[in-house]
Amino acid sequence: MPVTAVALGPKPDPLLADAIARGGAASAPLEEAQGLVWAGDDPAHFPAVLPDSIRWVQLPSAGVEHWFAARVVQRHPDVVWTSAAGAFAATVAEHAFALLLAGVRALPGHLAATTWRQREFFDRVGTLRGSRVAIIGAGGIGRALIPMLASVGATVIAVNRSGRPVAGAAETLSADRVDEVFSRVDHVVVAAPATSETRHLIGRAQLAQLGSRSWVINVARGPLVDTEALVDALRDNAIGGAGLDVTDPEPLPDGHPLWTLPNAIITPHDSNPPSVRTAAFAEHVAENVRRFVAGEALTARIDPLAGY
Amino acid sequence: MPVTAVALGPKPDPLLADAIARGGAASAPLEEAQGLVWAGDDPAHFPAVLPDSIRWVQLPSAGVEHWFAARVVQRHPDVVWTSAAGAFAATVAEHAFALLLAGVRALPGHLAATTWRQREFFDRVGTLRGSRVAIIGAGGIGRALIPMLASVGATVIAVNRSGRPVAGAAETLSADRVDEVFSRVDHVVVAAPATSETRHLIGRAQLAQLGSRSWVINVARGPLVDTEALVDALRDNAIGGAGLDVTDPEPLPDGHPLWTLPNAIITPHDSNPPSVRTAAFAEHVAENVRRFVAGEALTARIDPLAGY
Repeated sequence: MPVTAVALGPKPDPLLADAIARGGAASAPLEEAQGLVWAGDDPAHFPAVLPDSIRWVQLPSAGVEHWFAARVVQRHPDVVWTSAAGAFAATVAEHAFALLLAGVRALPGHLAATTWRQREFFDRVGTLRGSRVAIIGAGGIGRALIPMLASVGATVIAVNRSGRPVAGAAETLSADRVDEVFSRVDHVVVAAPATSETRHLIGRAQLAQLGSRSWVINVARGPLVDTEALVDALRDNAIGGAGLDVTDPEPLPDGHPLWTLPNAIITPHDSNPPSVRTAAFAEHVAENVRRFVAGEALTARIDPLAGY
Repeated sequence: MPVTAVALGPKPDPLLADAIARGGAASAPLEEAQGLVWAGDDPAHFPAVLPDSIRWVQLPSAGVEHWFAARVVQRHPDVVWTSAAGAFAATVAEHAFALLLAGVRALPGHLAATTWRQREFFDRVGTLRGSRVAIIGAGGIGRALIPMLASVGATVIAVNRSGRPVAGAAETLSADRVDEVFSRVDHVVVAAPATSETRHLIGRAQLAQLGSRSWVINVARGPLVDTEALVDALRDNAIGGAGLDVTDPEPLPDGHPLWTLPNAIITPHDSNPPSVRTAAFAEHVAENVRRFVAGEALTARIDPLAGY
């Protein structure tokens, strides 16, 4: 069996070179390789032309809409593309969980306080125990979140495209029934891919069905939530609060009301910081190289038609 | 078999009366009862004299040092006393977990920000995945915390009095070896009872062994941490931060530096708010009444000599 060769771009990286070796492939220049591991974030720097020998490209991010917007994926229809979906699932899920717990435990209010107001907070501190949480988009992040929620006694209603039951969820709804979920849960975590169908998945009508102690967490993409409707709900205290690692617009401009609303927690798309990301991506690369060498189905394969 | 009668004080409470019934006992006035469920927080209101028929008293809090300070327990050496230790374990553990996650994910800094500073936060956001957490005092709260930490991929070193292995902990140290733990862990959660032996368990020497990204969480009693040493460590950024549901002094006075240090999260002893507490205490009462009626060993029995 000939040795499988995998190239690495846009620049050398010892951790990723090691991952390619651990996966059982040789490192090689692009012209001599069958696979390409691309660690750069900017599609503009991607090779305009790929050698015919390249059959697989591994992209470095979980969300790949910018690779579609730049038409990089579409330009190479004969290549198998994989994203890093799943590689960062656990750390992003941990971030979502931190935002939700912080909300339920009233940490924004606590951090703003400069005097001991126990009686006020007795009415504001809640618990996830016994609560119901909707996870909209039960891909890698959503599935990684389920055992975290279970550990504090919350139950999950998952929403995914197919409605096929998600392990650990009390119930799974198909995406076309997503609007049924809001009146049935205490909190909502958005972890769905950004597509034309999921834009403003959380809008005015959906927010109106949540309770005054409900938190909305978005760790997916900003446009899945209608920002204007969300700001209104937060201003009116119609919901408990929102924890957003992604915003629309993003970056969130200075002076935007979300920066100062007392029931909003904004993190600047940092749920998966480079320090954590590099190690997780290398694990993902090693596994996909192993599968590529063995001729197995690759993990996190991109669907060129669906756009994710 | 004669019906066991349990009294309820200081005032009627339908939830607790129901718990007594569910436990299999009859409700009765103090003079006719063998057990007493006491739901009042102030030892000064406890009956000065108990009828000879009373063999068991259930107190309403997990920490009972104020009942010892008022000499209530010592006045009745022939009575079996039980605390509510364990009843609130899960909700207090959830609070500790929320504080730790908020710290590791840099939520205090995020909440203070009013502009998009992704690069700054990339260096500040961490993960509990792969981290080591010391739980000092592996009673009910500490044990309830272990599966929560496991769900995000952290491992636990437990410290308890006996050193007897705690289920789910990677390692258990006996209390006399507690000083070994600080250099070996990323974060510390204090959940030990307050006794003369545990005062200033976390002092200057212990804090000095922690890292610059380490968080110290205290959900037990304020005096277990040397406040002055902690403030110095926080001011110097010698540790990552502190999440305190209990303080020394408590209440924390206005103007105290802990209110405004950017790496401190103060919650005013509200990890177990009444809304959550009442339901949890009723479950505890029902179980202990059942055991009392059946002649079984009661749960959360107080040791009059140890003081907890």
